[in-house]
Amino acid sequence: MQLNDLLNHTSEWLKGSGPNSDIIISSRIRLARNLDKFPFPHWANKKQGEETLDSINEGEETLNSIKDGIAKSEFLKRTIFFKLDEMDSVDKQFLVERHLMSLDHAQNTENKAVAIDDEEIVSIMINEEDHIRMQVMQSGFNLFEAWNIIKRIDDSLAKDLNFAFLPDWGYLTACPTNAGTGMRGSVMLHLPALVMTRSIDRVLSAISKLSFTTRGLYGEGTQAMGNFFQISNQVSLGPSEDEIIESINGLIRQIIEQENQAREGLLSKNKPLLEDRINRSLGILKNARIISSQETIELLSMVRLGSDLEMIKDIDRRTINELFIITQPAHLQKIENKKLSPEERDVKRAQLIRSKLNIL
Amino acid sequence: MQLNDLLNHTSEWLKGSGPNSDIIISSRIRLARNLDKFPFPHWANKKQGEETLDSINEGEETLNSIKDGIAKSEFLKRTIFFKLDEMDSVDKQFLVERHLMSLDHAQNTENKAVAIDDEEIVSIMINEEDHIRMQVMQSGFNLFEAWNIIKRIDDSLAKDLNFAFLPDWGYLTACPTNAGTGMRGSVMLHLPALVMTRSIDRVLSAISKLSFTTRGLYGEGTQAMGNFFQISNQVSLGPSEDEIIESINGLIRQIIEQENQAREGLLSKNKPLLEDRINRSLGILKNARIISSQETIELLSMVRLGSDLEMIKDIDRRTINELFIITQPAHLQKIENKKLSPEERDVKRAQLIRSKLNIL
Repeated sequence: MQLNDLLNHTSEWLKGSGPNSDIIISSRIRLARNLDKFPFPHWANKKQGEETLDSINEGEETLNSIKDGIAKSEFLKRTIFFKLDEMDSVDKQFLVERHLMSLDHAQNTENKAVAIDDEEIVSIMINEEDHIRMQVMQSGFNLFEAWNIIKRIDDSLAKDLNFAFLPDWGYLTACPTNAGTGMRGSVMLHLPALVMTRSIDRVLSAISKLSFTTRGLYGEGTQAMGNFFQISNQVSLGPSEDEIIESINGLIRQIIEQENQAREGLLSKNKPLLEDRINRSLGILKNARIISSQETIELLSMVRLGSDLEMIKDIDRRTINELFIITQPAHLQKIENKKLSPEERDVKRAQLIRSKLNIL
Repeated sequence: MQLNDLLNHTSEWLKGSGPNSDIIISSRIRLARNLDKFPFPHWANKKQGEETLDSINEGEETLNSIKDGIAKSEFLKRTIFFKLDEMDSVDKQFLVERHLMSLDHAQNTENKAVAIDDEEIVSIMINEEDHIRMQVMQSGFNLFEAWNIIKRIDDSLAKDLNFAFLPDWGYLTACPTNAGTGMRGSVMLHLPALVMTRSIDRVLSAISKLSFTTRGLYGEGTQAMGNFFQISNQVSLGPSEDEIIESINGLIRQIIEQENQAREGLLSKNKPLLEDRINRSLGILKNARIISSQETIELLSMVRLGSDLEMIKDIDRRTINELFIITQPAHLQKIENKKLSPEERDVKRAQLIRSKLNIL
């Protein structure tokens, strides 16, 4: 598999399937692991950094054998390994846009690498904040399934690599907020009705009091756009992995309930207004000649709501989800196979959207 | 002919044909006449008002015979006569929206009437500000043709009716600004490029210094909407009718030139932006579920520009012109054949626009 092959492929997290996929885009489990005997990446000198990378490469063999096993179920067939200092900026941004690595990981790329499987379920960042940051993504509301997959990957890596671990503390991590389980569970939600009914601030403030964090579409430090909210646990030390997932699930179930109530409220009280907004959004997307990434996301959010409420019937959720990602800057440049200025991208983006939506 | 027959008919001024019809919607000549021996309408008591109306009814015979002659050319076949106090408010507004009578004429309807021909070229208001206000409309830039038609109507009426006239002053009118020729020539222009390039204020201020007036889509006291401007002469006393028309024509030719230059400038410097704005406007019109009259006019203005610039090819100018008029409040209510609240109209308007524009 080449990086470009991903262009013709729908990421697992964008499939638009799985439980509660009208509200939950995707579920993600991330584990932080560090090698015993090596300093944390940010503290490593150049020499030591290279050793870490070599050591992971030795571990790849084991990783591959486990993935072979997992691939037999449904996903995970091969893994590709990218050294970031060998990638150009568009390719790195491309992986960030696909949620296969963090924005941070794309900076200062020395001795950094990322390994991904061709179903885009698994991604492993090497020498990010921790030596290993592995994640498993699932479409829809599916944290336990993600946990089942990542557990096996973690176990297999542990056979070859000695992870820094203390019986009283659990896994050690560069930042103490990740210590213990080293686990972060995240769920990406689409909450247009809570935003439209102005209930979202109340919901988000309740979430922050319950030791969960809310982030935007592109993780830490990014703003909420297109009514997307990523909710994760803050505490990784103390409760078990299952308990952490159960606590996230409990919260998410409540938010789903509230979003559904808000949708029903809009339908019963403001249906014509809602239909108007949804159809205008689709009309603009089908006709614009110049469109920014931000406006695209906001309009697609409305179209997705329209599809979920069956007001829009001829465009499926998967097409809409794909548009969210392929209209991003690096994706547009990969599709065009050349560097594009922001102005050129706004024109190409509009073209691409029209070509995808105007097929009747 | 019944009033409702007009619903299935395109007014002369909306045909989208005639000279310079990419910029000039229509040309109109209006003559003010008053009967000798009768006071002006606003000074008449009830008894005298009724006599005026009777006297006009006597004049109708002559009017019809002239119209028969004119009808042999191309337009003007029959005339219908409406007493305004026998019309309901929607029907009166309907005639105002079709530019067949003034907003003022629809108020205080006692002893008022309007006679129109079924091509909607000629309209004669009785007991408006003056006893007789007759107008002739032509599509496109065509004031002399309108003048040729109205001259014949005026002459025939003068055979039966004694018009108040003084050799030194010309025709006498209720307001001295109309005395002399009693003539007002008006041209309705669509000037989107001058508005978009922010040159319109400079143009309008030059016009006002040249003793011309600028008004909106619905005449005196109405605002410019949808980039439509109605330009008329201010002076009716002194120059001859031909001289007045020639002076308006000279000014209009300059404005056409400036609008064309502004369109060319936009095309050479901002074509993608222009295409974007035009196509988004069409996209919203084709998809909105709720839309105000004001927004409709603004968006249709962009679509009309798109059609004039051949950026939009599958919608002709006549369809666009018709939409301007049939989406007005009284027209919507006539089409639905019932009273509609403003909210109901916004929904019906969007429906009507979709049905007209989504035929492929």
